[in-house]
Formats: sequence, structure tokens, C-alpha cells
Amino acid sequence: MTFNIVGVIGASRPDRRTYELAEEVGKEIAKRGAAVLCGGLGGVMEAVCKGARSEGGLTIGIIPSDFRDDANKYVQIPIVTGMGIGRNVMLVKSADALIAVGGGFGTLSEIAHALNMGKTVIGLDTWKLERAYDKPIPGLASAGDPKEAVNLAMESILGMK
Amino acid sequence: MTFNIVGVIGASRPDRRTYELAEEVGKEIAKRGAAVLCGGLGGVMEAVCKGARSEGGLTIGIIPSDFRDDANKYVQIPIVTGMGIGRNVMLVKSADALIAVGGGFGTLSEIAHALNMGKTVIGLDTWKLERAYDKPIPGLASAGDPKEAVNLAMESILGMK
Amino acid sequence: MTFNIVGVIGASRPDRRTYELAEEVGKEIAKRGAAVLCGGLGGVMEAVCKGARSEGGLTIGIIPSDFRDDANKYVQIPIVTGMGIGRNVMLVKSADALIAVGGGFGTLSEIAHALNMGKTVIGLDTWKLERAYDKPIPGLASAGDPKEAVNLAMESILGMK
Amino acid sequence: MTFNIVGVIGASRPDRRTYELAEEVGKEIAKRGAAVLCGGLGGVMEAVCKGARSEGGLTIGIIPSDFRDDANKYVQIPIVTGMGIGRNVMLVKSADALIAVGGGFGTLSEIAHALNMGKTVIGLDTWKLERAYDKPIPGLASAGDPKEAVNLAMESILGMK
Repeated sequence: MTFNIVGVIGASRPDRRTYELAEEVGKEIAKRGAAVLCGGLGGVMEAVCKGARSEGGLTIGIIPSDFRDDANKYVQIPIVTGMGIGRNVMLVKSADALIAVGGGFGTLSEIAHALNMGKTVIGLDTWKLERAYDKPIPGLASAGDPKEAVNLAMESILGMK
Repeated sequence: MTFNIVGVIGASRPDRRTYELAEEVGKEIAKRGAAVLCGGLGGVMEAVCKGARSEGGLTIGIIPSDFRDDANKYVQIPIVTGMGIGRNVMLVKSADALIAVGGGFGTLSEIAHALNMGKTVIGLDTWKLERAYDKPIPGLASAGDPKEAVNLAMESILGMK
Repeated sequence: MTFNIVGVIGASRPDRRTYELAEEVGKEIAKRGAAVLCGGLGGVMEAVCKGARSEGGLTIGIIPSDFRDDANKYVQIPIVTGMGIGRNVMLVKSADALIAVGGGFGTLSEIAHALNMGKTVIGLDTWKLERAYDKPIPGLASAGDPKEAVNLAMESILGMK
Repeated sequence: MTFNIVGVIGASRPDRRTYELAEEVGKEIAKRGAAVLCGGLGGVMEAVCKGARSEGGLTIGIIPSDFRDDANKYVQIPIVTGMGIGRNVMLVKSADALIAVGGGFGTLSEIAHALNMGKTVIGLDTWKLERAYDKPIPGLASAGDPKEAVNLAMESILGMK
């Protein structure tokens, strides 16, 4: 039996509100018995691991550098890739569903990868997407708060299985 | 002396107009003595290589699969990565500037990577970007036609050197 | 606190004796509270996960394809890379120490990566290395049985910390 | 028409004799109209590009870092991967045949990858391989001098086509 794995993506330098949202997301994931998968570094990545650990959850970080010590201290399983932002693709592929909390261009690239692979992405205060020459596209599902975000992600995961 | 390298990204199944735009982009790049770098497969990737070769230009394709024969027939140098869409990151990193012609989520992820790395992306009929909680961001420079797109890309490259 | 992580590498189509050695290695790792990290597929990779799970251990598989269902059924955390054998590098980087059980050229490349990174590799019935123009080099530490292999790996890990 | 591409692998800090061997290999490759593909950095990688350029050959470097300026000055097409030694796999996959000149564990991993993929590797003063529990295996073809090495590589390439 594999763990249900929720990928969480977002800014490495979030404001306080975004950090707290991410921490709450981590708690909610752990409460549902799923593992948190993230990029393993600071900001949103740290917050979600911190939240998950406070509820006894399992945390996995996909580290871009060659150094496991670059992982934040709440990561239990650092996967050391040495592949820089190329690791974002693996994060997306390894997650059963994704939650994006805030985020810049790195997060946008992960959202795009996820949509490209047909994965569900739940957004909390993150990118909206639109085509230049087109009508608006569905893009991300969006959630009003961490609990709703995790509920939507878990529904998507359990619906697949 | 390295070649000036213009990355061209876009849909693998474009409509006819987009295909022709991409072919024209390839011709313009070759006329300026720069090399075309692309994902090596069909659609926009094929069109830009076809255009470049018709003007005697050099064409490089970063292939996602393990098979060099997956390259379109206008690619002179297939780089075989076996890394799936993970190869998109390398395409962006290896280009001096990028031109996006049409495109879906894969192209969007490449645009996001490029902006994340501070690279210039010139858009022809492609994505517009906006933040959910923010005012519009500059995003991509956009061009009215292939010649203008290549001029803008080359100015960006020559300005860096 | 991160888990201690022992990487186990070896053939995907081992003979029965090698399969049993790998299963025993998995049990011994789990008994020491460390996690098993492997390539996630069949053969030695399956055997070591099976052994670890039978002792309640944690198992992580770094999958080469895009499909988590390619993981053997004893993998609890599939990391889906889509990077083909490029994933071998990440396996080596993510392990605190490695045990090689049998194995062909894929295993040899992992041993070489590990030695290149200064990681300890404990061999059980695997490659011996020698330079063409040189005297024999130390290469791998080798172990007489699974218990000794895991003891040597754990000593190496605990000595580092 | 794609270029014939000969991958050349070897130490980044070779002794003078090995450097000269690699330079000669580069010249011979260029004389046969093939492109040189290498890891793009110093030592054997620089020598082979230098040799190829002195005969007007085309040189491609697969750079491990995020920085094209890490390429040696004889590389005409730097492919910037940001994937560290993960780039070795792509080098092997992209070459039609490989020549190994001297080399340490990094080179050994590339030889192993190449043999694993069924590619021809011609060795000049490099690793010999042997199994612990087995009789000696064929491993690498070996050559007495650069000209013979390139002849063997080209025969292998032209025999495939």
C-alpha cells in the first residue's frame, strides 16, 4: 500500500499570512493520513512540513541541490536530486494531487506541468491563467481556506483510486 | 566562440497559421546567423527547424525520449535526454533568449521557467499571465510578427554580450 | 529528524539466491530502524522492499518511468521521476550508504556514481573494479552476508553523523 | 541529415599525455566530418574540443551547471543542463559511439551507462571491467592510439546506419 501523497508548492519567501496558510495545509494533510511532498526548502515548503509534523504526518522533500542538509528541519525523507529546478517536474509527477499556496514563477511552472499531466491543482491565493487569443481556461480549482484545499485534493485522490 | 542560440517553444499540434509563423521564425533566426534550439519533435518544433534549414541555419533538438529517431527530420543535432518533459528546463537554460509561438501548458511551463531565470521571452500569439491577488505583471514581451519577434530576441542576446 | 536511508541496488532479474540475499538485506535494514531506498521496480528492488516491509520498515522507490504503478507492491513511497536511468544518480545522492547485491551495468554505473561522490558502497556478490593502467584500487567494501553488509552500511552512516 | 556524433569522455584533470591523446582524438573526429560531444568542461573535455576546432570540427558540450560560461572556450554549442552529473546520462544517450580517454569514477559511470544501452565504447588507457563472481566480460573495445580509436568509433557508427 502506498501512501496518499499531496504535493504542496509555493514561494520560498512568502509573507506571514501565506506561511500560516501553508502550515495549516500541512496539518490538514496529516490529519487525513496522507504524506506531504514538497520542494524541501524554506518558506511555504518549510511551513507545510512543520504543520504536518505537528500532527505526526510524514514529510518528503525533493531537494534541488546535492546537499541533504539544504532540507528544512521538518523534512523526514530528503530526496537529493542535484537537478536544480529540474526537480520540480518530479515533484509534480510524484504527487497524487497538488495544492499551490501563493508562489512566483517557479510555482507557475509547476502548475503548468501539473495541468499538462492532467493532475488536479488546488490554488490558495495563487496564479490565474488566461490565453492571449482565447477565452479564459478552467485552469486551477481554487479554494477559500486550507481545509477546503485539502478536502478538494483528497477527494481528487480518493476519486482516482 | 559559441553560437547565438534562440530557443523556440510552442505547440506540438499547432494550426496551420501557427505552423507558418514558426517556420518564418526559423528563417529569420538563420538569416541572423543564430542557431535554433527546440524540443526536437513535431508541430512548432518541426516548423522552426524547417524554416532555419531552408536558410542554411543550424538546428538543435532536445529530445524527451531515449530515441534520436523521434527528432523531426530538420534537426541536425539531436540531444537525447530520456528525461521526458524534464528536458524543457534544459531547453530554457541553454537558450540565450526564447520565442514562444502559440502553445499549451508545456509551453506555459517553459515560459515560467524562463521568466524565473530572468530570460527574455518574446511571445507570438501565446499566454498572457496575471496574478490572482495582484496587479498584472509584465510577463512576456510580445511581437506582432516573426521578424519583430526575432529582432527582439536578437537585441536581447546582443545586449547581454 | 530525517530517517537513516540505506540505498540498495542490484539486478532487476536476479537468480533466486540473489533475490533471497536482497530480501534478507531488507529485513536487516528495517530491524535497525532505517528506511530502504531503491529503484522501485522488480528483482533485487522488489526483494529488498519485501524484506523491509515484513519487518515493518519504510520503503521508498525512485521510479524511472512516468507511472507510479510501475513500482513493486512493497514500495510505500514511489518517487516518480520520468527520467529513465537518469534516476540512478538521484538514488545514489539520496542514500546515506549503499549496498549492491549482484547487478549488471546499471548497478555498475550506480557504484561508480557512489564512489565518485565519496559514498560507502558495500558489495554482496557484485562488481570488482580495476584500472587498465594502474594497480587495483580499493573500490567497494565487500561483505560475506546480508547482516554484515547492513552492519557495515549502518556503521558508515552513524560514523558520519 | 543529422551529424554523426562521437561522445568523448575522460578525466577533468588528466596528465599531459592523456590531454594530448584527447586532443588528437578531437582532430581525428573532425577530419571524418563528425561532431564532438563532451561534458564541456576542462581536461579531456577541453582537449578534445580544442583538437576538433583546430580542424574546423563542430563541438558540443553538455554542461552540468546552470552557467554556459563554465564551458571551455572550444565549445561552440553549450547545452546547459543544471543537472550536475545527471548530465552524463544524456551525453551517453546523445552519442552515436563513445571514446573514453583515461578517466576516473565519473568516466566509469559513463562507460557503464553506455554498455547498459548497448553502445560501443572505445577505450584509450581507461577502465577494465570484471565481475566478482564471473569470468571476465568483454566490456570495452580498446584502441592503441587516437587514430585507431576514432576509426573503430566511426566504423561502429557507419555500421549502424
